[in-house]
Amino acid sequence: MTFEATAIIREKTEQAVEILKEKDIDLWITFVRETSQVKDPVLDLILGFDLTWTSALLIHRSGARVAIVGRYDVPNVERLGAYDRVIGYDAAFQQPLLAEIEALRPRQIAVNYSDSDPAADGLTYGMFRVLSRTLAATPYPDRLVSAEALIAALRGRKTASEIQLIKNAVERTEEILAQLSPYIRPGVADTEVADFLHNSLTKNGYGASWDWDYCPVVTVGPDAAVGHAMPSGLRIKPGNLVQVDFGISHYGFVSDLQRTWYVRSPVEATIPTAIRQGWDATTVALEAGRAALKPGARGWEVDAAARRALVEEGYPEYMHAFGHHIGRTAHDGATVLGPRWERYGSSVEGVVETGNVFAIELGVVVPGHGYIGREENVVITATGAEYLSHPQEQLWIV
Amino acid sequence: MTFEATAIIREKTEQAVEILKEKDIDLWITFVRETSQVKDPVLDLILGFDLTWTSALLIHRSGARVAIVGRYDVPNVERLGAYDRVIGYDAAFQQPLLAEIEALRPRQIAVNYSDSDPAADGLTYGMFRVLSRTLAATPYPDRLVSAEALIAALRGRKTASEIQLIKNAVERTEEILAQLSPYIRPGVADTEVADFLHNSLTKNGYGASWDWDYCPVVTVGPDAAVGHAMPSGLRIKPGNLVQVDFGISHYGFVSDLQRTWYVRSPVEATIPTAIRQGWDATTVALEAGRAALKPGARGWEVDAAARRALVEEGYPEYMHAFGHHIGRTAHDGATVLGPRWERYGSSVEGVVETGNVFAIELGVVVPGHGYIGREENVVITATGAEYLSHPQEQLWIV
Repeated sequence: MTFEATAIIREKTEQAVEILKEKDIDLWITFVRETSQVKDPVLDLILGFDLTWTSALLIHRSGARVAIVGRYDVPNVERLGAYDRVIGYDAAFQQPLLAEIEALRPRQIAVNYSDSDPAADGLTYGMFRVLSRTLAATPYPDRLVSAEALIAALRGRKTASEIQLIKNAVERTEEILAQLSPYIRPGVADTEVADFLHNSLTKNGYGASWDWDYCPVVTVGPDAAVGHAMPSGLRIKPGNLVQVDFGISHYGFVSDLQRTWYVRSPVEATIPTAIRQGWDATTVALEAGRAALKPGARGWEVDAAARRALVEEGYPEYMHAFGHHIGRTAHDGATVLGPRWERYGSSVEGVVETGNVFAIELGVVVPGHGYIGREENVVITATGAEYLSHPQEQLWIV
Repeated sequence: MTFEATAIIREKTEQAVEILKEKDIDLWITFVRETSQVKDPVLDLILGFDLTWTSALLIHRSGARVAIVGRYDVPNVERLGAYDRVIGYDAAFQQPLLAEIEALRPRQIAVNYSDSDPAADGLTYGMFRVLSRTLAATPYPDRLVSAEALIAALRGRKTASEIQLIKNAVERTEEILAQLSPYIRPGVADTEVADFLHNSLTKNGYGASWDWDYCPVVTVGPDAAVGHAMPSGLRIKPGNLVQVDFGISHYGFVSDLQRTWYVRSPVEATIPTAIRQGWDATTVALEAGRAALKPGARGWEVDAAARRALVEEGYPEYMHAFGHHIGRTAHDGATVLGPRWERYGSSVEGVVETGNVFAIELGVVVPGHGYIGREENVVITATGAEYLSHPQEQLWIV
């Protein structure tokens, strides 16, 4: 692990203590084994590497942080410096775990399960059974509660270092998209655009922000499917809009941006009115959503502001959510800035907080030309949503 | 996915049907969501890619294989060809899942949890709750059973294609180790040996068989720690034994081999007697273990045969298990060929089966010279354990 990665893990475990106090939870236990087989996604936040034998990471509202791990994992956890005490065991974890819990006498023990949030659901059913059996002779089985609110806050409230790393990923993505620009021209296939971006990732040692096959999404002209389709060989023609949805993963943090080009036909002096109007409408809607995106707003309220603005401009509603967290992944946490549709469940009831980082996005179809897609990355401060990206202010004309 | 990878997934789902009949289990359900966040390790066997929305993979003893997945995942699952019916949903999975279960009327439903085997414990506690709630108005919550025996058999009994891919990984590992041989000489550091092997992996596009930092393990001379230590900069000297524990991952399957060199001092005409005796003793013990390694043997019986032979040769017991499954990972499944020590739990009570692939290993310390490590890979046939590797028959002399 790099020095920076280690420092962030330490920051996050300190932040977890503050969130425990705020949520009035006494103790949080992350309970795992053989994480190369099944990995609790919380480990990326509070440990950063794999554990082998059955292990318990305890964080208490008093600030105490204790790791109970197999003997061979002790040096790695000690080197990390995020846990005050690292208790190694040879034969069995039960006795040291019970001793720590008895000493702390928690009123609640939060563990990593959630009916609705996969990022907070890293405790397996087998491990839940092992934990319940370990606690059987104590009052604590009845004090187990879901850590989902705690994990959502810990993942969602980015520290200054996390924001810096996301910003860094965004800037490098912008560099790559700027390099792509001269390459967008008639005759080039969507697959070639994807290859260009994949090669940029490989050359620079970056990962894709999401599934490699679908990162980037490239939408060429009016005949392409809009959404998460893989490139299909469609070639750019004059009069096409070309939209790219792309992000990178670098030092463990990701970006998620969309950019749109218009490929003029030789006879055009200016861009078609329908395209100009579409662009202006998406700008109005994006900024309306961004204006609503501030601490205390509910996810669905932010979406509603953008959605309403787009409809008022005379365009159909977009068929997705306006925004989602980004961070260690391109869908990084619980609160979604989306409509109150069944498929979004309770995720759109979440509240926007300072330190959240979102990708915000929407778009319109311009018949005969293609798709205008807009997506920028923002960080939430006390006063509102500030751009981490350099927002695309105009269509890029080829 | 490659054609071969797809074919293996189909084979494994067919094999699962046979195992359901044998174990007298009616239905097996793998129940997952957002597997990029938390991945059930069983998916490597029966699907091979990520699923997004809540999904259920049903395999029934009648041979019926049904996948219920979110609409966007339907094309990938259909292309795979391992499921007779792929049911896509838009709003909710509950109704199609209940309909399938009601139609099959299973006496038992095996789901992926295990108190002792992490490879069979991919169902999260949140997902267990969701499933229980989905089944609440039916008789089926009481019919949920652990799929651990089924998964252990499915993972452990390699198909012909799986064995071929492991053999391929073993052969490529042997090529790399042969290339390493001329590089082993006085003055070379253990870190340089590790760099050589890491570069071979990168150059060939292979992965490491286990954690990159510990693959290879390089043990130089009498002063090195034996086990899973990272290289520390020790340089090879005349009179040293040099042992390398190394494996690759290629097309999704791994190898795991050890090889040992002896670096003669210029004045030596023959190798020291103590080294020759150590080598011969490890050969006797390895072959004693291999002779005991046949269908029907219990894990601990195989270990005992090798362990007893080594002690009878006048050497101390090795402090680990004699053997472990290899396949998609370097510790690939439930039965361990190890002693009845507490830390191995019930894993050493497992029974060896035709089609299992094991790494078998042991070693001795030769005071003043270093460590002799032996490790080969074998496949179990009706008559016994056949080498997949070309076993090292003599010390490699430098």
